[in-house]
Amino acid sequence: MTHRTRFFRHSPDDLRPVTQPTIRTVAVVGAGVIGRSWIHVFARAGCETRVFDPDPEQLARALEWARASAEEDEALRFVDAVTAFREAQAVRRCDTLEEALSGAGWVQESGPETLAVKQRIFAQLDGAADPGTILASSTSAHDMSRIADGLAGAGRCVVAHPVNPPHVIPMVEVLPGEGTRPEVLTASLAFLESVGQSPVQMNRYVSGFLLNRLQAALIREAVFLYESGAASAEAIDTVVREGLGLRWALLGPFGTGHTNADGGAGEYFRRYGDAYRELWRELEADPEFSGRTIEGIHEETEAMYGAGATAALCAWRDRLVRRIRALKDEDPPPGSSTPGSRS
Amino acid sequence: MTHRTRFFRHSPDDLRPVTQPTIRTVAVVGAGVIGRSWIHVFARAGCETRVFDPDPEQLARALEWARASAEEDEALRFVDAVTAFREAQAVRRCDTLEEALSGAGWVQESGPETLAVKQRIFAQLDGAADPGTILASSTSAHDMSRIADGLAGAGRCVVAHPVNPPHVIPMVEVLPGEGTRPEVLTASLAFLESVGQSPVQMNRYVSGFLLNRLQAALIREAVFLYESGAASAEAIDTVVREGLGLRWALLGPFGTGHTNADGGAGEYFRRYGDAYRELWRELEADPEFSGRTIEGIHEETEAMYGAGATAALCAWRDRLVRRIRALKDEDPPPGSSTPGSRS
Repeated sequence: MTHRTRFFRHSPDDLRPVTQPTIRTVAVVGAGVIGRSWIHVFARAGCETRVFDPDPEQLARALEWARASAEEDEALRFVDAVTAFREAQAVRRCDTLEEALSGAGWVQESGPETLAVKQRIFAQLDGAADPGTILASSTSAHDMSRIADGLAGAGRCVVAHPVNPPHVIPMVEVLPGEGTRPEVLTASLAFLESVGQSPVQMNRYVSGFLLNRLQAALIREAVFLYESGAASAEAIDTVVREGLGLRWALLGPFGTGHTNADGGAGEYFRRYGDAYRELWRELEADPEFSGRTIEGIHEETEAMYGAGATAALCAWRDRLVRRIRALKDEDPPPGSSTPGSRS
Repeated sequence: MTHRTRFFRHSPDDLRPVTQPTIRTVAVVGAGVIGRSWIHVFARAGCETRVFDPDPEQLARALEWARASAEEDEALRFVDAVTAFREAQAVRRCDTLEEALSGAGWVQESGPETLAVKQRIFAQLDGAADPGTILASSTSAHDMSRIADGLAGAGRCVVAHPVNPPHVIPMVEVLPGEGTRPEVLTASLAFLESVGQSPVQMNRYVSGFLLNRLQAALIREAVFLYESGAASAEAIDTVVREGLGLRWALLGPFGTGHTNADGGAGEYFRRYGDAYRELWRELEADPEFSGRTIEGIHEETEAMYGAGATAALCAWRDRLVRRIRALKDEDPPPGSSTPGSRS
């Protein structure tokens, strides 16, 4: 079930999936930073992609961004997607929600991150979409049980929360609400995989989902170590970048444990379980994280990487993530039970 | 100060440093799994490397492993190191501690992880080594203030704790004891960098140092999420491998925050500081981590990656880590204030 996503490789940057999308027509509703990246994901996979945003200027900017992003994407230089963007066929700007939903089998909602707004949008979507259409939310915070509470179509609603930017980072958290039908969950996982993402299923809502909880756990300790004066922000960032992160890009925390003992994760965690418990008692639960702490972290981080989220820094990150994914796709782990890459 | 390590590139697997080692003769004392990997690090950098272990069989096995590792290492196919290993010149088997220490400017101790044993070894090292020799311990657990307590040469003792295996993963945690002289700390950082590692300085001892604390913080939450039934072990491992880890191989937690807001880490953490604090309150402090939990994690991890730490799986990990390092070395972040790669 793992390492499933395979790509055609015209170049190391080519992240087009080998598979055909299991749903051919999709609607992207809400065209901010996350929505525009979803346009790229779906168009790259060959989906008919309709885009709607209530703000016409945001809609225009997102389509312009997605067109430029497709042109820059080495993968798309080889396919019809650029042409499709230009001719507004595969990607269609829609002036009404109804036009976007017409014929769509999947709706990816990426509106504002407020429960009341999500509830209002999902009521509209449920009222206007074809009965078989799956309604997915990019929310990073809300429980689908609450977003879809009281809707006739609650059974077809699901959370599909990506990592920014989803056209580069494949992981998507897929969470059912209490009313989500099992076959909708199954179809959601299959669809996201067919467009080249790496969906992971959550069994139920927990606040922060998986990724943000794991990230928050590490950041809490990183902030504490900085605040306590144990090391500089540069040192802490380097420990992750030149140490933990090099392994975690290949194997998660359990997979890393698996390579640390001949008998695998079981032997490793049995042997070091008490050491972990002892260390857990030492970890700080409540760093101050004051304005002064944040200022200090900012200054050191800027000294390491330059000013903020510049286009050059983000483009560098996205370029190298693509290439790491290409390495993993061309040379998958030997024990995994998956077919080889088609590249 | 960051992204400093540059390599000659005869191939993507070449991790030889460009620099000459600042200390030419080193002694590796203790030739287990960590010690043998240090042999590879020092020999690759061109150091005269003397190796001693009180167990002659372990010593023989380590030298055999290091020779085979050097032969497999694409970098070393191009240099004299393989020949040197064969001719036992650059790497010398020593039958006594005194022979290993003679003329060495750096001693890397990698003995058993017990405080009393470390204290005994350091007393021997301090008695036998030349006065100017730096005495470094690979300990992952002990405070140098205690290891070197009462030694005349406490000022030349320092912790240099690597990540396994150090010939592949560059990060080394460097910690002074209370008595360590500042110039010894400075020279230790410079030496480790000159042999191609990425040393990070800790200002003082905290249990677990930096890397194991950060790793333990993430593993604690990963174990909790599994135990609580929120997701499978496979899903949790995938979240890190296909999500967080892809970014953390390039940018640490502060660097990642830096790319999440136009104004950089400061803006990002000011905006989401309260959200992090709220999530920190939700994280589990004390998962059960029972035998049954470990068994479940083991079964799913084995299904993902095959049986335990097989040679093939570890070789795959090491090969891909080398290639990720090569990508980063060839294409460093645009804002970093470092010279370009010489490749």
